[in-house]
Amino acid sequence: MTSPVGLEPWQQRAQKYREQAAAKIPEAWRLKAEFTSDLGPASSKSVFDVPAKSGILSERELDITANYDATTLLAKLASSELSSLDVTTAFCKRAAIAQQLTCCLTETFFEQGIERAKYCDEYLAKHGKPLGPLHGLPISIKDSFNVKGMPSTIGYISFLDHGPVKTDSAIVTILLELGAVLYTKTNVPQSLMTGDSENNLFLRVLNPTKLCLGSGGSSGGEGALLAMRGSPIGVGTDIAGSIRIPAYVNGTFGLRPTASRIPYGGQTAPGRAGSPGILAVAGPLARSVRDVEMFMKAVLGYDCWKVDDSAISAPWREPATSESKALTIGYLMEDAKYPLHPPVLRAMKTAIAELEKAGHKVVDLTPELPTPDLMNKVKESAFTHFAMDPNHTALQNIRKSGEPIVASIPTASLPELKHFVPSVDDVFRLNVERRQYMKVFRELYVKNDLDLVLTPLYQATAVAHDNYGIPIYTVLANLLDYPAMTLPYLKADKQADVEYRRDVSYSPAYIPDQVEGAPAGIQLMGRPMRDEELVKQSQIVADALGIKSL
Amino acid sequence: MTSPVGLEPWQQRAQKYREQAAAKIPEAWRLKAEFTSDLGPASSKSVFDVPAKSGILSERELDITANYDATTLLAKLASSELSSLDVTTAFCKRAAIAQQLTCCLTETFFEQGIERAKYCDEYLAKHGKPLGPLHGLPISIKDSFNVKGMPSTIGYISFLDHGPVKTDSAIVTILLELGAVLYTKTNVPQSLMTGDSENNLFLRVLNPTKLCLGSGGSSGGEGALLAMRGSPIGVGTDIAGSIRIPAYVNGTFGLRPTASRIPYGGQTAPGRAGSPGILAVAGPLARSVRDVEMFMKAVLGYDCWKVDDSAISAPWREPATSESKALTIGYLMEDAKYPLHPPVLRAMKTAIAELEKAGHKVVDLTPELPTPDLMNKVKESAFTHFAMDPNHTALQNIRKSGEPIVASIPTASLPELKHFVPSVDDVFRLNVERRQYMKVFRELYVKNDLDLVLTPLYQATAVAHDNYGIPIYTVLANLLDYPAMTLPYLKADKQADVEYRRDVSYSPAYIPDQVEGAPAGIQLMGRPMRDEELVKQSQIVADALGIKSL
Repeated sequence: MTSPVGLEPWQQRAQKYREQAAAKIPEAWRLKAEFTSDLGPASSKSVFDVPAKSGILSERELDITANYDATTLLAKLASSELSSLDVTTAFCKRAAIAQQLTCCLTETFFEQGIERAKYCDEYLAKHGKPLGPLHGLPISIKDSFNVKGMPSTIGYISFLDHGPVKTDSAIVTILLELGAVLYTKTNVPQSLMTGDSENNLFLRVLNPTKLCLGSGGSSGGEGALLAMRGSPIGVGTDIAGSIRIPAYVNGTFGLRPTASRIPYGGQTAPGRAGSPGILAVAGPLARSVRDVEMFMKAVLGYDCWKVDDSAISAPWREPATSESKALTIGYLMEDAKYPLHPPVLRAMKTAIAELEKAGHKVVDLTPELPTPDLMNKVKESAFTHFAMDPNHTALQNIRKSGEPIVASIPTASLPELKHFVPSVDDVFRLNVERRQYMKVFRELYVKNDLDLVLTPLYQATAVAHDNYGIPIYTVLANLLDYPAMTLPYLKADKQADVEYRRDVSYSPAYIPDQVEGAPAGIQLMGRPMRDEELVKQSQIVADALGIKSL
Repeated sequence: MTSPVGLEPWQQRAQKYREQAAAKIPEAWRLKAEFTSDLGPASSKSVFDVPAKSGILSERELDITANYDATTLLAKLASSELSSLDVTTAFCKRAAIAQQLTCCLTETFFEQGIERAKYCDEYLAKHGKPLGPLHGLPISIKDSFNVKGMPSTIGYISFLDHGPVKTDSAIVTILLELGAVLYTKTNVPQSLMTGDSENNLFLRVLNPTKLCLGSGGSSGGEGALLAMRGSPIGVGTDIAGSIRIPAYVNGTFGLRPTASRIPYGGQTAPGRAGSPGILAVAGPLARSVRDVEMFMKAVLGYDCWKVDDSAISAPWREPATSESKALTIGYLMEDAKYPLHPPVLRAMKTAIAELEKAGHKVVDLTPELPTPDLMNKVKESAFTHFAMDPNHTALQNIRKSGEPIVASIPTASLPELKHFVPSVDDVFRLNVERRQYMKVFRELYVKNDLDLVLTPLYQATAVAHDNYGIPIYTVLANLLDYPAMTLPYLKADKQADVEYRRDVSYSPAYIPDQVEGAPAGIQLMGRPMRDEELVKQSQIVADALGIKSL
């Protein structure tokens, strides 16, 4: 059944919704045609220069959005050096620009954000003290977080039928109680289970470094928005890498905390509630390690359980780690099935050399693994966890509207599970397997007295759209439930990378010109429930490697 | 296939094993016939007076075992006022007596305990400081905890085939590293899933208050041993009440901590590993609230994750609760299907009145429940969780040896689940249901600003053997994963109880003469991960109610 103009009903709905969304961006914030021509997923353009050239932001607004991390902004907001109105307006403008270039937003509510900012300013003026530790700070949130009165479709056209939601997600309640300003939700992939953030409602997030590259997923909109400086800090979710991947491919910081530390409750779920096994977690994408720490400390300073029974009531601790401590860092270089692309191999090898040079102890863990393909086995176990819903609820949510499955979904699941019929025996088996992997890693940590484990985040940097595939290097921390951090480190550089090229079969393909300039990075895994130590030690590593705030 | 003397092979094995176990008790510690005649599960005798009359313990040993809680003993041990050798010998003797009267022990290793005690004494003499916070203290442990070199059968005759285990349970490693002395494991019910501690290998635990009453389960041996003063503090496990029930029916204190705070790893499991949903937890049975606190603090002062990846790495906190704080205590009086026996109703009503008199706010939560039979619904949901193994591994473990199922097992599961075939859909459904119950209770806590929820532990006091049935009042905390404490409070007293008798159908039957003198008690539930606050507030409640250390 197609419409007179050749569009399916779902296409008509989606197009109309996008037009309404676009119309919400004030005229004065719309880019001139010269900035938007020749854009799109086939373009190899970088769009980082557009905000400054667009004429939409004042010099002061460019400065506010580009040159400070959230920690600095909070200090300026609390001291009234900056008003929340000015900060929020600047970020709304820049987010609107980012949306026009990279399709990173879903629901925008700039007006409400600006109203809230005024309230914050008035509160501070009247009471002489900030609303809370996040006073006046604009924070972007992934589309899955519910904000009372806003739709929460996570890109499913069928979810347009739900209309505006009636309650806030737990983290939304908390951020607001802590004084933050919310102004936009960010784009995601259909199903939230791919590393390519495309859906048929809000379309595809493009990587601002190069529009032809993916922005990662599933918090892909957050990654692109952060990189565009359209948000000082954002909140994503992660069940296989969905915070760390977009942070990585966009060159930002990101933390997957231990499960249930940051309240996850009250979100719109892409699939079936009640899944046993691996838990999705919420966490920040940020401009600096210290912003990650600030966010964790602020949120865990709130009595989170009061708004979310799935949150672990464990307050943020001051860790014992001293900043001068020499760390012991184990590393896993690569899994043979997923050989590292030259820029990633260079980032890993350089990091290891620099860490040793800085006096830290570095231990190659690969020879200690019970089987050399352990990471691949973990990946297979994890992705079987993700296939446990006999109803295939996510697929049903897609099909209900008639919309098609996006191209990346089949690439982001195990082909051998195509006809998998999960049984209760599988539930028991997977739980037992998971415990075994947890034991292996705990013993590696204990035996080697490890503070951290260093791994790649992915075998490549950002890659061409729909090429991300299965995130073997990030899903490890999800299966283990270890906190894990993305640190941006180095960039693809075909001249520097040439000596790291090997005679292996790269998958996805390694195309030096295509990824030139794309951010590389490293992942640091801590110990479960020791997010505090991981964050402190990530700062030590960042300092050793010369990694600065964005 | 019966043997020449009319015994099945499993009976012969079990009998031989019991004879070997009895032979390990030194001759000098064996009770004279006058103390053991007329005993057994049909006797209405109390055996509390036997240790003092037996002539086996010296006056000093009677004093050591009867008159101090673990906290006091630890102080005396650390200051060398008492030697570990003396303390351990005294408790070994008294435990041996308790075993002969109540069948509360499984594997005894008194000789190793005494050797260990000597080591502790020598260490203190040589180094001038104790081994650790549990220096020299004898601690009893439930049979499911593995101790290297000891069998760990949990009463399954088929598990005799396993021989001695090769590794310590995580908590055993920790207790030893903290300086404790282990000397005996304690008896359990077959399958660990009934409130009547009987199995075909070690037979039935009798309640020392009256041998014809049950000792509770599944940590029934711990309960009887503690009540007999055969141990200063013990470690049990709890998936539906298995710490709190034996503590209750034996008149001791007991804590079911939040899951995974006390390391649970490395035990011998009665059923299948990898079960989704409700977790069994480990925790103390003790002589005082402060002993519970001492135990938690000592164990969580250890870096538990290093020996057990299933342990949450969350150190013991100093809670904010001040000792003079007026508490807000919600209460759930009873579920209509399980009306409280008069002594229990009296304990609840008296506690409520006394708490109000002491200035605490008491809130009746029953009118606020979304459905009046909520506790019963929770029980049904919880017991469906326990029936999720399609292989019925526990049954297989029983049948393998030819031994029969003990009488209480069929009474401790839902009859409607007899032909239940669990599906993956049930796994999802149960998880969702559980979250809904968690939400209900969280909202009750938040709305009423509750510190604690007071409930009965069971509809009756200790009851005649094989009458315990399904523990509706304790399993609530397991499904919610809230920490919960047993406080001993009042005793069955037919004269005082008469006015609490109602025209309801008591199940199990209320037989005043049978339970006369049996301990009653109350349960206090805290908030998840706030074991610290629960323990502190339990002390406040104990003080208000005049509940003393044993």
